[in-house]
Amino acid sequence: MTTSATHSLVNVRAMTQQDHDAWLPLWKGYNAFYGREGATALPDEVTRVLWSRLFNPIEPVFAAVAEIDGRVVGLVHYLYHRSTTRIEPVCYLQDLFTEPKLRGKGVGRALIHHVYEQAQLAGASRVYWQTHTANTAGRTLYDKVASHLGFIVYSKDIEPN
Amino acid sequence: MTTSATHSLVNVRAMTQQDHDAWLPLWKGYNAFYGREGATALPDEVTRVLWSRLFNPIEPVFAAVAEIDGRVVGLVHYLYHRSTTRIEPVCYLQDLFTEPKLRGKGVGRALIHHVYEQAQLAGASRVYWQTHTANTAGRTLYDKVASHLGFIVYSKDIEPN
Amino acid sequence: MTTSATHSLVNVRAMTQQDHDAWLPLWKGYNAFYGREGATALPDEVTRVLWSRLFNPIEPVFAAVAEIDGRVVGLVHYLYHRSTTRIEPVCYLQDLFTEPKLRGKGVGRALIHHVYEQAQLAGASRVYWQTHTANTAGRTLYDKVASHLGFIVYSKDIEPN
Amino acid sequence: MTTSATHSLVNVRAMTQQDHDAWLPLWKGYNAFYGREGATALPDEVTRVLWSRLFNPIEPVFAAVAEIDGRVVGLVHYLYHRSTTRIEPVCYLQDLFTEPKLRGKGVGRALIHHVYEQAQLAGASRVYWQTHTANTAGRTLYDKVASHLGFIVYSKDIEPN
Repeated sequence: MTTSATHSLVNVRAMTQQDHDAWLPLWKGYNAFYGREGATALPDEVTRVLWSRLFNPIEPVFAAVAEIDGRVVGLVHYLYHRSTTRIEPVCYLQDLFTEPKLRGKGVGRALIHHVYEQAQLAGASRVYWQTHTANTAGRTLYDKVASHLGFIVYSKDIEPN
Repeated sequence: MTTSATHSLVNVRAMTQQDHDAWLPLWKGYNAFYGREGATALPDEVTRVLWSRLFNPIEPVFAAVAEIDGRVVGLVHYLYHRSTTRIEPVCYLQDLFTEPKLRGKGVGRALIHHVYEQAQLAGASRVYWQTHTANTAGRTLYDKVASHLGFIVYSKDIEPN
Repeated sequence: MTTSATHSLVNVRAMTQQDHDAWLPLWKGYNAFYGREGATALPDEVTRVLWSRLFNPIEPVFAAVAEIDGRVVGLVHYLYHRSTTRIEPVCYLQDLFTEPKLRGKGVGRALIHHVYEQAQLAGASRVYWQTHTANTAGRTLYDKVASHLGFIVYSKDIEPN
Repeated sequence: MTTSATHSLVNVRAMTQQDHDAWLPLWKGYNAFYGREGATALPDEVTRVLWSRLFNPIEPVFAAVAEIDGRVVGLVHYLYHRSTTRIEPVCYLQDLFTEPKLRGKGVGRALIHHVYEQAQLAGASRVYWQTHTANTAGRTLYDKVASHLGFIVYSKDIEPN
């Protein structure tokens, strides 16, 4: 079966500090996808702080990478936070990205399943994420592994004090 | 001006332990609105844990109430969590509810603005919330005080370990 | 009765941002008492960060001041943290200081009792602090309002990574 | 050299959920050492909550075990909290215990050094713990790996609200 054969090539593992150089271009690619590039690029300071939090045991922020043939081709960042309607924490899968020319090989799906497993180990009972309504390619996958129940996001940026 | 006159009647303040009896029916009303009642009601244990977290100084979960003529008529619960794209925490306004017969008096708006102020004091640079796409009444207000930029929510409930 | 008459002059209240100028010399006096002055003074950056945390709702760090005749003459800083042997958080009263020429008027005792009340409201079941074994004046008070059960502190400063 | 030869047998690693059955008797032994047994035993509920926090990614409470020949013979629990005199968190090594008949083999020392390494990764600049002044055996080790600078602990148990 083509699908499962392809699938078996993808290896997902926790990110380590040795992955920095493979991670950085994927992280920049992800941000460019959401328009954070050029004049509106994410400040380098934010990237540095994120990287240090990924390996700081008192920060509930985690990362994994997907490899094909030993090469890092995808990333996922996820974090935990409280919810008023659950005793246990919930897991927010904030960032997911696969190298564009390796799409369709099950990388995103494998990364999402890794987060499901980790969240379960951590005692969380829900994993959620956000995507843009126009992200058709992503949503084709998301509709298979999770549900959009009609909830949408409102946000307001506020000036620092 | 009718609006500002009406508006001036609403007083928002941090919730205290003395508000429990006024808070509980509003919390149940809110949950009923989202279908969590009867056989699918929120377990009492979740409500007890939430209440204790609202006053636990090491939990980043907060609440405020809105009063009209000294009577509690609305609630808001909000919490802070990490984001991979910001150095400072973000503020998730998770629950907002006004007694149905007191809608249209600026209660929801006043509660949201209170959260904006508190988030600013906390050094957060974004407040966000979720609502159902069909919540027309709520969205009329939300479109005035915040923005829906096209992001939608996917979620997956997972079995406890 | 002399004691209660003297005692009644002391007013303790939560610190506010307006107290900064009264707080700063007390904080410097407290640090000087522990030898943190001159070449070994606490960096100003630490003082700035502390001040901002005292008013940041997501930091479990709190402060109160004691006033005599409307003048701030004492400070207390306290914070909450986990304990492996308790479900609820514990309260660490880290800093306590009274203007030297106003000692013996019940300022320290009133500040400690304020922390006891706040810790109780917060659901904590223990308040503790550290002092140097040679702090005879302080220990005369501490032996009246708490207990030294024979526990001593070991510490190790480690180099940042 | 006997010491280093003995030392090399001790393996320290992060605790996992699979360690529960090996951890529980050590935890009970530790509590018995501090007189928490029989009528004054730690409630089982506290032990259950502690265990769940050790694996909850939003709780800053951690554990490691020491193994000799693949058998768990020691435990350490440590947590992070704020300090008013430091920007970074401090690390409180709250519980340390070695199976009595395996004392003197470097287990305690190896566990303490593991905490030093983890604290450094977490960006903490101080590790501290408390011990009873009469714990002569423990203090022989502590005096080698840390310092008692004369600070002692006062505490007050308060009634829940």
